[in-house]
Amino acid sequence: MADKRIPTKMYLEESELPRYWYNLNAVLKHDPALNPKTLKPVTAEDLSEVFCEELVKQELNDKDEYIPIPEEIQEFYRMIRPSPLTRAYCLEKVLDTPAEIYYKFEGNNTSGSHKLNSAVAQAYYAKQQGLTSLTTETGAGQWGTALSMACAYYGLDLTVFMVKCSAEQKPFRRAVIETYGGKVIPSPSETTKVGREILKAFPNTGGSLGCAVSEATEKALETPNCKYVLGSVLDHVILHQTIIGLELKAVLEKYNIEPDMLISCIGGGSNFGGFVAPFIKDKISGTKNYRIIGVEPASCPSLTRGKYAYDFGDTGKMTPLLKMYTLGNGFMPTANHSGGLRYHGMNPFVSKLYHDGIIEATSVEQTKVFEAAVTFAKSEGILPAPESSHSIRVAIDEALKCKETGEKKKIVFCLTGTGYFDLKAYTAYNNKTMTDYIPTDEELQKGFDSLPNIEHNK
Amino acid sequence: MADKRIPTKMYLEESELPRYWYNLNAVLKHDPALNPKTLKPVTAEDLSEVFCEELVKQELNDKDEYIPIPEEIQEFYRMIRPSPLTRAYCLEKVLDTPAEIYYKFEGNNTSGSHKLNSAVAQAYYAKQQGLTSLTTETGAGQWGTALSMACAYYGLDLTVFMVKCSAEQKPFRRAVIETYGGKVIPSPSETTKVGREILKAFPNTGGSLGCAVSEATEKALETPNCKYVLGSVLDHVILHQTIIGLELKAVLEKYNIEPDMLISCIGGGSNFGGFVAPFIKDKISGTKNYRIIGVEPASCPSLTRGKYAYDFGDTGKMTPLLKMYTLGNGFMPTANHSGGLRYHGMNPFVSKLYHDGIIEATSVEQTKVFEAAVTFAKSEGILPAPESSHSIRVAIDEALKCKETGEKKKIVFCLTGTGYFDLKAYTAYNNKTMTDYIPTDEELQKGFDSLPNIEHNK
Repeated sequence: MADKRIPTKMYLEESELPRYWYNLNAVLKHDPALNPKTLKPVTAEDLSEVFCEELVKQELNDKDEYIPIPEEIQEFYRMIRPSPLTRAYCLEKVLDTPAEIYYKFEGNNTSGSHKLNSAVAQAYYAKQQGLTSLTTETGAGQWGTALSMACAYYGLDLTVFMVKCSAEQKPFRRAVIETYGGKVIPSPSETTKVGREILKAFPNTGGSLGCAVSEATEKALETPNCKYVLGSVLDHVILHQTIIGLELKAVLEKYNIEPDMLISCIGGGSNFGGFVAPFIKDKISGTKNYRIIGVEPASCPSLTRGKYAYDFGDTGKMTPLLKMYTLGNGFMPTANHSGGLRYHGMNPFVSKLYHDGIIEATSVEQTKVFEAAVTFAKSEGILPAPESSHSIRVAIDEALKCKETGEKKKIVFCLTGTGYFDLKAYTAYNNKTMTDYIPTDEELQKGFDSLPNIEHNK
Repeated sequence: MADKRIPTKMYLEESELPRYWYNLNAVLKHDPALNPKTLKPVTAEDLSEVFCEELVKQELNDKDEYIPIPEEIQEFYRMIRPSPLTRAYCLEKVLDTPAEIYYKFEGNNTSGSHKLNSAVAQAYYAKQQGLTSLTTETGAGQWGTALSMACAYYGLDLTVFMVKCSAEQKPFRRAVIETYGGKVIPSPSETTKVGREILKAFPNTGGSLGCAVSEATEKALETPNCKYVLGSVLDHVILHQTIIGLELKAVLEKYNIEPDMLISCIGGGSNFGGFVAPFIKDKISGTKNYRIIGVEPASCPSLTRGKYAYDFGDTGKMTPLLKMYTLGNGFMPTANHSGGLRYHGMNPFVSKLYHDGIIEATSVEQTKVFEAAVTFAKSEGILPAPESSHSIRVAIDEALKCKETGEKKKIVFCLTGTGYFDLKAYTAYNNKTMTDYIPTDEELQKGFDSLPNIEHNK
């Protein structure tokens, strides 16, 4: 036994790192995105107005199951990857469970999350295309940080429209972005037409992600050699994030670990999709029968209580229409501390997987999430991001079920990031001033009323 | 060449992790610490009043070159170690240098620094002794965070006297400590006699490390089953930190890398001592002739401009007298942003190594340090702690010298931690409001005037 002990931390050798991303589009088709004006499937031309060419190609590629990772991106990945797979021996001991708990930790880089996996790819392709600058939006700040790191590395200018209340509440997030050379504009701002209009109508607004998307898009359209990029929801983002799942699959095989369930938190779908994509084919074919579980906040339950319909990706109704589980583009999530999970919709793939019964979803309340976060922090020595702690909550619950049944299930979850910039939330939990919120059916109905009234949704 | 490429990130296997700490005391003797009342070498009895028994034994052990790491501590180390040795390919490219740059990164844990290596050992021995609580002080906050993590893991209560201005300026550091269950008391406080006296004399003081040490010591003495622990300066702290140097030595050998120089920042000496200790014997014997360089801030130049004399470790003159390079216990360092390097004295070992010419020391100015930090952050994807950036500055300077001479020197430095809680400093650098400070000879003389007027110092 001593010799066969599974190590606490498991790494792949550099020579074992994946050299391809995994393209789920080649295996499983979802309903196409629609041009909202024509209600026809979006074309490369539609998308290229706003997005980088190579990313548009990836978004629409449904032929190649494996897409090579350019050497320049691999070079960057080698600085931040592989991320470790950790056996949570100490957490298991604290829980006194026969279950085996494993986590893939994506937070060991300065962006503090998995977001850097896609940011570096997007910045690379922008550079290759000869662009000189990018725009984006950021809410909680992880994506803005990751993209500013990637742009600094490739020498691109970056303008980040940061939701105003977030920029004010998280001055240190802003400082990291600025240290990497990103220009932060609290949104709504006077720098864009849409921003000025919103400020005129709502002078005291703290902003919203929807508004920041609109400002970033406008800015990209009017700036020469500039495109807009985003960090979740679209398929090419998930494509880049499959580096997580590919590494996981390789390291599980290397150490001969057969998981019983894969768990990850789910907002727009970027980490979840990337974490699980390489496992889907075996699940569909029945070769493997692991459970795959997405965890969302009870306050923003897109999968568990949303509708499967065509909807806009933003509140400004400027994006293509996506077929997805959605609470409606008019749904306003409450001030949950997991900023990364406050999104009305869901990546179309993840939506289809849920609709087809290939994956499960569950929702958890905020205080229960932080209780799990603190248990984890004290036993495993990592202060987790609130988003990631949704996975921890469900992993702990499943391990405690094993304690009752005596089953030695192997539970694997994705620890997407660290909570170093979320300490106001931890302080609220410590002081017992944190509250929970579950929207009523009536409140959800208001969101559903904002769904586009088109033939496809009838 | 492709096959022989040195990987970007180098890890030891779990089975290769050191199971012993390295005790430099067994190889090289320094002048003993003195009881300030008797001016005789301190005894175990003297020290045991305040410190844990096993730590006192380690402090005075000059026989055993290798000291076994208890299995329970190894279990914790396996969660946070090995730390990676990284080849800084991207930094080398940015500098366009023929030099090879490597760094051992100790910041991939929630304490954000190497401090956890000793904190977990100290908490373990306290638990073994049957203690139920510990006290300590913290300035910048890394040590307080590390010890709160260790105490949470072993179920010990912890009171942290946090320098008041630091507690106010770094509310999130405080929040992390509290999340792990540590009780934070801004110092000076009304909770101790010494605190009340200081507050009476200086009602508006922001506190100092010396005062916090005195409060933590008083609190430990009056609390049942409680001892005081500290995170630097003493030999047993360096002993635990040798895990860094031992791993480094093993991984350098594994990948057949012969360093030309070892560089690390230096405050009280804990990371520097631990980083270099396992390399000292070969350096003294002449088997190896690598340069070993300590880097200190120009604003607090203990080695480069201090005196080698017996001095107190604290401004309250309560500790044993240590033979060390010191600016005098009355020296008041300016508000340099590298809180971890603002200490008047230096570990006695490190002092002796410098005095005997075995190691070198150099000092660097703050703005130059941050310039190096930002260059590093943009190329290597890690936002470094200001303290660690002292090493980066010198590593970059040495690499640039190689660019001139064409030499392919192998430069290895210790990246002790991350700067996620130092963003006010980065903001000051970004805004160009950061200043440098070099004390005048007259200012230094005031500090030297506070040295104890004893026979040994004549």
